[in-house]
Amino acid sequence: MSTALLTDRYELTMIDAAIRSGLHERECVFEVFGRRLPDGRRYGIVAGTGRLLDLIDDFRFGTEEVDWLRENGVVSDATLAWLADYRFTGTISGYREGEVYFPGSPILVVQGGFAECVVLETLILSALNYDSAVASAAARMVSAADGRPLAEMGSRRANEQAAVAATRAAYIAGFSASSNLEAGREWGIPTMGTAAHAFTLLHESEEEAFRAQVAALGTGTTLLVDTYDVTAAVDLAVRVAGTGLGAVRIDSGDLPSQVAAVRAQLDGLGATATKIKVTNDLDEYTIAALRAAPVDSYGVGTSVVTGSGFPAVGLVYKLVAHRADDRGWVAVAKTSTAKAGIGGRKHPVRVLVDGVAVSETIVVGDAAPPADGGRALLVPLVIEGTPVAEHRGATGTRLARQHRARAVAELPRDALRLSKGEAAIPTVYLTS
Amino acid sequence: MSTALLTDRYELTMIDAAIRSGLHERECVFEVFGRRLPDGRRYGIVAGTGRLLDLIDDFRFGTEEVDWLRENGVVSDATLAWLADYRFTGTISGYREGEVYFPGSPILVVQGGFAECVVLETLILSALNYDSAVASAAARMVSAADGRPLAEMGSRRANEQAAVAATRAAYIAGFSASSNLEAGREWGIPTMGTAAHAFTLLHESEEEAFRAQVAALGTGTTLLVDTYDVTAAVDLAVRVAGTGLGAVRIDSGDLPSQVAAVRAQLDGLGATATKIKVTNDLDEYTIAALRAAPVDSYGVGTSVVTGSGFPAVGLVYKLVAHRADDRGWVAVAKTSTAKAGIGGRKHPVRVLVDGVAVSETIVVGDAAPPADGGRALLVPLVIEGTPVAEHRGATGTRLARQHRARAVAELPRDALRLSKGEAAIPTVYLTS
Repeated sequence: MSTALLTDRYELTMIDAAIRSGLHERECVFEVFGRRLPDGRRYGIVAGTGRLLDLIDDFRFGTEEVDWLRENGVVSDATLAWLADYRFTGTISGYREGEVYFPGSPILVVQGGFAECVVLETLILSALNYDSAVASAAARMVSAADGRPLAEMGSRRANEQAAVAATRAAYIAGFSASSNLEAGREWGIPTMGTAAHAFTLLHESEEEAFRAQVAALGTGTTLLVDTYDVTAAVDLAVRVAGTGLGAVRIDSGDLPSQVAAVRAQLDGLGATATKIKVTNDLDEYTIAALRAAPVDSYGVGTSVVTGSGFPAVGLVYKLVAHRADDRGWVAVAKTSTAKAGIGGRKHPVRVLVDGVAVSETIVVGDAAPPADGGRALLVPLVIEGTPVAEHRGATGTRLARQHRARAVAELPRDALRLSKGEAAIPTVYLTS
Repeated sequence: MSTALLTDRYELTMIDAAIRSGLHERECVFEVFGRRLPDGRRYGIVAGTGRLLDLIDDFRFGTEEVDWLRENGVVSDATLAWLADYRFTGTISGYREGEVYFPGSPILVVQGGFAECVVLETLILSALNYDSAVASAAARMVSAADGRPLAEMGSRRANEQAAVAATRAAYIAGFSASSNLEAGREWGIPTMGTAAHAFTLLHESEEEAFRAQVAALGTGTTLLVDTYDVTAAVDLAVRVAGTGLGAVRIDSGDLPSQVAAVRAQLDGLGATATKIKVTNDLDEYTIAALRAAPVDSYGVGTSVVTGSGFPAVGLVYKLVAHRADDRGWVAVAKTSTAKAGIGGRKHPVRVLVDGVAVSETIVVGDAAPPADGGRALLVPLVIEGTPVAEHRGATGTRLARQHRARAVAELPRDALRLSKGEAAIPTVYLTS
């Protein structure tokens, strides 16, 4: 399936005009960065990179796409011919997926001819903006859960395809599992889920429903206990499944008190190993509020797939340098008003002291690197048109999840507080 | 492409257990509704229905899907055999796409066997929750723009596939055009766009860039005038393109004063027909704030594709009735805590007085219809498994846009105010 038309029209009309001025192959560097973090957030998590490599691979203008563009008069015949041959041949480096980022962090650096790079703008930003929004929110929930497992179950609150990307991003950020089957198939993410209220309501009685579920899914299943009366349902659940019942799920009510009561009830019935899952409109704050409650795991829906208040993180894609006719690099940037940029290619380094991050140091152009060393943040993602395999598929997703754990562990301790604050470390530009 | 795995795992395990209890074919009615509108909103717009009919058509478990489910032990062999034969054979009615809705409005009613209906839950909610979130936000922007055209250009701030759905939803809500090419191809939505700052920065000078763009795209094009100095760029734009220049675009700065200055400048240069487009992080409030400014059209990005603060509208899918063994309908609902529902099949009617909506009247079960008549809100969408053609494709999208205009025109005048308030009309339940 071609991804080429998942693109803003102006990317193609710019190519049309650049072919006219003879500059469409001028070598350029574009960078993806966020001017700021979402309000009060202390760090962000890069996600979407592994998916993006597949999307770029599928960015080809086939007969169907070219015909539609011609019939709709979008660009000239010369440009159509150029698009028909399109294949990205440039080089992309970027922050490893799962990496922590800050304001100004150049999380993706795309180098190649102007036209071949600019045409990827919309697709690159779509993948990185949404996936990073989900991962950045999810990482806060993971901190708030303090080691207890989280399951993502928000597919119904996101576009049906976005849901698969959201699942993957939440997993990279440290969630353990998801309800989404396609994410299981495509990205190797563990899937979970047993039954909804409709299943209980289908039956003449809760008992009939529980018996059918245990017969089909085993005593290790999770029984949903809040269709009618929670106390009665917990009694019934243990009576039907025995003390080996896997878990009960609570999806409503005043959770802290409810959870404590259910734990005491289960223990009193001898079901001391039966776990308690809660799933009632949770976000990072309600998860944190349940820290003292005997919850065993959390299911999170709407808040994670919508970035918990920030469904897009404001990443932009900007031309920062091009080669002049004498082959030297020229730094460029918009200069008007509040959106003025910093031109020139960036080399970002995370400076650490005793293993703790102290600054996001961005070396601009030919400036000298920081004296105190640090961890270089750019890794190769696409080399002369060929995506680097280790970042792709289920393996890349798993590696990104591991990298996120390491990168978050480097943050200063108070970076993980949920309260609003500045970026956890300052962004420092080194210019020559 | 099958949509069958864009689904929560528990939909399939419920089928597994229902086959065990012999109730998987029990005739059921499920309804989609929202318990409330997003905070302060006065009405919502239904969108996603036309897309959903395609998604349901593609909901089939092929060899690939069945093999993956088997290898991962998701459900029993009996259930796999049932899934392999799956094809929705039931009946769906619902609010016409583009219809206005309120708390409790049963915007989709799905009737059929338990298993064939429950398995569509995730997909139905994904399509309706996201698309309705975008359309509901977009409709407020359309009101705020007070007749001036709006273009949707937020693809880069949404998942790449969600962006296509968002474009369609914004168009249904009254936007005129979009930057998204795939939405143009798939749904017949007019596309627009000319150039970004990168195009100007690619060239040695703004003049060189403007000349190339006008040569390629004609004098009717839109020139972006805020890369360096706006006043100088407007002068240059008219010098290069002549007074027949189509439009200038301003993407930054203090818009109300900027726009007035640019209008005066253009008029002074004789470019009295040259239009002004503004595109700087607009939402319904900033659009309203520009009402007195000589803006000709708006381009809206992030806020529309993210539902302007409400990226999911909280629609749920609930079993409300099933047939008992004696063939009579039994109303069912969850009864615990705050999420208690109203069981029984609903027949919604919009009651109008002198053409103005006064209540959303929902007849429950066999209760008598309202004495004062009104507009019945359910239309057939799928009849015994076959989608109704008029709702699909580009034609369905266009009809939905027309219907939205009619339905919004019925609202009381103050429903269109942007300030927070209650639902514009009350939801009234008639029970027997």
